[in-house]
Amino acid sequence: MSIRDELVEMGRKARQASRALARLSSRVKDDALRAMADGLEEARAELQAANRRDLEEAARAGLSRAMIDRLTLSDGVIASMAQGLREVAAQADPVGEVVRMWKRPNGLLVGKQRIPLGVIGIIYESRPNVTADAAGLCLKAGNAVVLRGGSEAIHSNRAIAAVLDQAAAAAGVPEGAIQVVGVTDRQAVLEMLRLDEYIDLIIPRGGEGLIRFVTENSRIPVIKHFKGVCHLFVDAWADLDAAERIVLNAKCQRPGVCNALETLLVHRDVAEAFLPRVGASLGEVGVEIRGCPQTRRWIPEAREATEEDWHAEYLDLILAVRVVDGLDGAIDHIDRYSSLHTEAIVTRDYANAQRFVREVNSSVVAVNASTRFSDGQQLGLGAEIGISTTKLHAFGPMGVMDLTTTKFVIFGEGQVREG
Amino acid sequence: MSIRDELVEMGRKARQASRALARLSSRVKDDALRAMADGLEEARAELQAANRRDLEEAARAGLSRAMIDRLTLSDGVIASMAQGLREVAAQADPVGEVVRMWKRPNGLLVGKQRIPLGVIGIIYESRPNVTADAAGLCLKAGNAVVLRGGSEAIHSNRAIAAVLDQAAAAAGVPEGAIQVVGVTDRQAVLEMLRLDEYIDLIIPRGGEGLIRFVTENSRIPVIKHFKGVCHLFVDAWADLDAAERIVLNAKCQRPGVCNALETLLVHRDVAEAFLPRVGASLGEVGVEIRGCPQTRRWIPEAREATEEDWHAEYLDLILAVRVVDGLDGAIDHIDRYSSLHTEAIVTRDYANAQRFVREVNSSVVAVNASTRFSDGQQLGLGAEIGISTTKLHAFGPMGVMDLTTTKFVIFGEGQVREG
Repeated sequence: MSIRDELVEMGRKARQASRALARLSSRVKDDALRAMADGLEEARAELQAANRRDLEEAARAGLSRAMIDRLTLSDGVIASMAQGLREVAAQADPVGEVVRMWKRPNGLLVGKQRIPLGVIGIIYESRPNVTADAAGLCLKAGNAVVLRGGSEAIHSNRAIAAVLDQAAAAAGVPEGAIQVVGVTDRQAVLEMLRLDEYIDLIIPRGGEGLIRFVTENSRIPVIKHFKGVCHLFVDAWADLDAAERIVLNAKCQRPGVCNALETLLVHRDVAEAFLPRVGASLGEVGVEIRGCPQTRRWIPEAREATEEDWHAEYLDLILAVRVVDGLDGAIDHIDRYSSLHTEAIVTRDYANAQRFVREVNSSVVAVNASTRFSDGQQLGLGAEIGISTTKLHAFGPMGVMDLTTTKFVIFGEGQVREG
Repeated sequence: MSIRDELVEMGRKARQASRALARLSSRVKDDALRAMADGLEEARAELQAANRRDLEEAARAGLSRAMIDRLTLSDGVIASMAQGLREVAAQADPVGEVVRMWKRPNGLLVGKQRIPLGVIGIIYESRPNVTADAAGLCLKAGNAVVLRGGSEAIHSNRAIAAVLDQAAAAAGVPEGAIQVVGVTDRQAVLEMLRLDEYIDLIIPRGGEGLIRFVTENSRIPVIKHFKGVCHLFVDAWADLDAAERIVLNAKCQRPGVCNALETLLVHRDVAEAFLPRVGASLGEVGVEIRGCPQTRRWIPEAREATEEDWHAEYLDLILAVRVVDGLDGAIDHIDRYSSLHTEAIVTRDYANAQRFVREVNSSVVAVNASTRFSDGQQLGLGAEIGISTTKLHAFGPMGVMDLTTTKFVIFGEGQVREG
């Protein structure tokens, strides 16, 4: 069978499964999710055996320590996949919820009701835990899923999917609900991206290269996340203690993630009061500062920032710092350099807080809080399927609800249209 | 300037305008919409002069009577464009609405707030009134719009856009908010579809050929509507008077539109009681029936339906009719042939009504009501920008709210992330 035929067959099976999935009761879905969690824990030895094959090949191929870490199915990783599935089971079922319902002058009751999207394709790299996380969220929202992980994790991904599929089927989930693409070359991705008849949405998870490749080649809608160049503006009316705490948390608590702070903007009226102290605190924990000329007046050890620094997503202990003329200057800078991910203001001024929230249209806009809260779990969405920095369908951290759409329902009593 | 450069320049202007548009007050937008309406009425003579150039060329090119009708800017069409803009002005502003807001255990207030999508591209054919309708809806939702109409209406479209743009600018709308692409060949469409840096959403309006061309070539997300093969199921427990009234309304009130009925499904237990009477009523108003063998037993004048008829969007006084074994048979038929547009059931049975609503996942599902209600205006959304039969972002009739997305807003008091 050609790659194309194999993928079409998977797509057809997924589409068929999706019809039955849409009609499953919440109880069957939640029982299945818990059975999948139990299954992973019971199959720990098998999963780790499969994982060892991937790890051996990774060692032979000379993958970096960090890559090998991400690839490893330790006891902890398996426990946390199982825990994740149980948490998803405990969340409310989004399917069937009537979001709004209203009455028309002719007596018709009209509502919008949540339904699954249908079939979701996930294209991802390295971390095999994505297999369980994504399968769980797709199932909860009543969607079939086609998973295409990286070649480096193929044995692990297949083993995980086999366990999940078997446990789900035993609990009453239709066959074809969870499928893994066995072929891992780029050609398989290309063919998958052409299955617009069978797949409703593609979510790529991985580096910028993968995401660009998917976006440029997909005939299926893609929800994507390029990068997070997050800004924090310290206003003249900021509580400087709070500002310092927030800057340190946003930059240092986990610098390698997309909601970490990359550019600090400081109102010129507090540059003298704020920059030396924040510079010292950042220096103590090893953060390198790249500043504008005014920043370097107050933090002499800062390197000179270039135009590139305002665009940079460092994902590291480096921070770009710029002194701005005020709220307008901060908003102008953000308009120009934002990746539409997350921006924050620290201020005690009511009007400035309101204006910042009104005028900054990134996916998450925060007042007096760390950019690190820009995360599905932290915002209260439950487990996160990804973050969107494009505006269609979903914008910002995405939870299980973002894997649904709404249909209109009309309850009538024989009405016909007049005009 | 090359076509590509010209379009990039338009995209850049639109993107810039969109930032200011997102911040416009509702009052400025609504004043502008009313000024645009007044402008169209005051410029009637100019608009009709421009329109005459299109009509003369259409006559020379030998366009059909129907095409020429659609192209004509009569007094009535101009009045209704103006009326449409005034109605949009009277609707509530979706931008700024906080859809939901909740509190996290750490005290953060988190909400989802509506913001504009940014820049919207509309690609359409023939009817120049789309220029005003689409521009009005995009402006109301705070979006810049790039309009690309057909070559047959280029003089009319340019004249309308010039009036709208001038009136809007005088009312305080930024330059570049409403732009018409001057080049009307396919190359210009192709270049437009590559402006993913500047355009956030493409809405094509026109025949299936145009929509397929746009879908296959766009790097920008497309919201589209292929066709409407709408079904109505008459259950064994239907009020047959209501059923007959609804069938006639759904098929005949305006047969040429996408929410008209195309396939009637009848429960076999009422075939004898229902088919002869509905067949006679349909025959009286000139509807041709194509039926399954059981249908032809009760409506002998019906032609034999072929497989093609179950797929057909007639847009004409033709109706496919099939007798089914019951609700399961009806749902199976719909699963197989539905275009995901609109399906309805006529029944007095509570459980069957509930099951039909739960199990049929088309964009509009109606109980005891005509399929003709599947329309933004009729459902209470206000003016309609289009209908989506794909599930991402919007599904079903789309109003001004569907031209927005939501951002997360966080109101904190200095919170930082712990874990």
